[in-house]
Amino acid sequence: MIQSTIEIIPPERRLSIAAIVFPGMDQIDLTGPYSVLSRIPNCSIQLVWKNKEPLRDHLGFSLLPDTTFDEAGQIDLLLIPGGPGQEELMDDERVLEFIRQRAEAAQCVFSVCTGALICGAAGLLTGRAATTHWTSLHLLKYFGAKTSTKRVAIDGTFVSAAGLTAGIDGALTVAALLRGDEVAQKIQLAIQYTPEPPFNCGSPETAPPKILAAVQEKTSSLTAKREETAKRIAAKMGVKVD
Amino acid sequence: MIQSTIEIIPPERRLSIAAIVFPGMDQIDLTGPYSVLSRIPNCSIQLVWKNKEPLRDHLGFSLLPDTTFDEAGQIDLLLIPGGPGQEELMDDERVLEFIRQRAEAAQCVFSVCTGALICGAAGLLTGRAATTHWTSLHLLKYFGAKTSTKRVAIDGTFVSAAGLTAGIDGALTVAALLRGDEVAQKIQLAIQYTPEPPFNCGSPETAPPKILAAVQEKTSSLTAKREETAKRIAAKMGVKVD
Repeated sequence: MIQSTIEIIPPERRLSIAAIVFPGMDQIDLTGPYSVLSRIPNCSIQLVWKNKEPLRDHLGFSLLPDTTFDEAGQIDLLLIPGGPGQEELMDDERVLEFIRQRAEAAQCVFSVCTGALICGAAGLLTGRAATTHWTSLHLLKYFGAKTSTKRVAIDGTFVSAAGLTAGIDGALTVAALLRGDEVAQKIQLAIQYTPEPPFNCGSPETAPPKILAAVQEKTSSLTAKREETAKRIAAKMGVKVD
Repeated sequence: MIQSTIEIIPPERRLSIAAIVFPGMDQIDLTGPYSVLSRIPNCSIQLVWKNKEPLRDHLGFSLLPDTTFDEAGQIDLLLIPGGPGQEELMDDERVLEFIRQRAEAAQCVFSVCTGALICGAAGLLTGRAATTHWTSLHLLKYFGAKTSTKRVAIDGTFVSAAGLTAGIDGALTVAALLRGDEVAQKIQLAIQYTPEPPFNCGSPETAPPKILAAVQEKTSSLTAKREETAKRIAAKMGVKVD
């Protein structure tokens, strides 16, 4: 079993958290984890992008970056959300280099949803267990990753959560790894996280075939584009895929 | 059993959604439901406040209102989030009157967390089943509500969700009521909502006593303030509480 190598940071040491935000991301990949991580005692969270202009997620939600890449200080926990806009970042060396550099010094890198693909393009997934949104699981191999179908995968200092809402589960796991179980438990109670999904329909394994087919159809062109990008990056990085 | 009186809106009719946003709210009360509701086909979502200046939630997250109270058009679904800043709205007639007027014409009013208390102050809860964050359940009676301990309570056209993350469950329920089960099921699959909380700790019934005591202690002064406000409003509205 793959273990975490994340070490508990003592409560008196300020925890510096930074999340990358970008146009076309999915806001819940950020805001779900934010609802958890912002409740960790003695922490700060920066929303980092190239500039501080408001930007929109792919469903129109406005987000306000507060820190530029140049301004970002030391980062203990680096959060990489996903969403359709991830495609635009896959060749963006400014972004990828920032992730690469900061990941090296961070206690923990935490990807949510297709944020894992961005981490892949930055070279972080080589030889590592990782997960992502169920529509993109088959793409992880192109980045040299060991594909995990867990909702939250942990490998060394890298934690990845599956699609969108999995970011809440992942963030509670990250909070426990960085500050201990009791801190995470208090947060879970504060946010009243006893989910009751109204349908048994949240994964391709449980969804009725008709529902699954409809969602696959709707995402097929984006998934195809992501696959093309992943193959191109695999060739560039020299990753051999059978 | 209390039933919904919400009627399905045909897919070809645009669904007009508006959420009130305010300083000191809790962002996840909005962003959780937003991740669901924004995926309903043929809908629009407005974030409504007194002005369009960026505002911050109680944990520092920046939100950008895009519509003023005067600008807001017809509203089918009115979302009222909560959070500590709710206290400032309990006597704010500009806000309460907007809610009152728009609730009357809406297909559905949907409160999340302590957004239910704002609805109470607007007079919407009289004789109605409602729920809220577990720390505020005992306050609903002061607004003439029938307290529900369900995670999502439905009474007529009023849907209320318990604390914070319950907004996701509530929004899926609302999506099903307004557009049918299949629409909600597709959304649940798209957002991969098969939650796996890392601890069995999300409610006062399941949390270890030590964790419960710590969270109660932390919220005690806010809860006391909310109780004082609720009692004052009960007196004003002529609600008798045993």
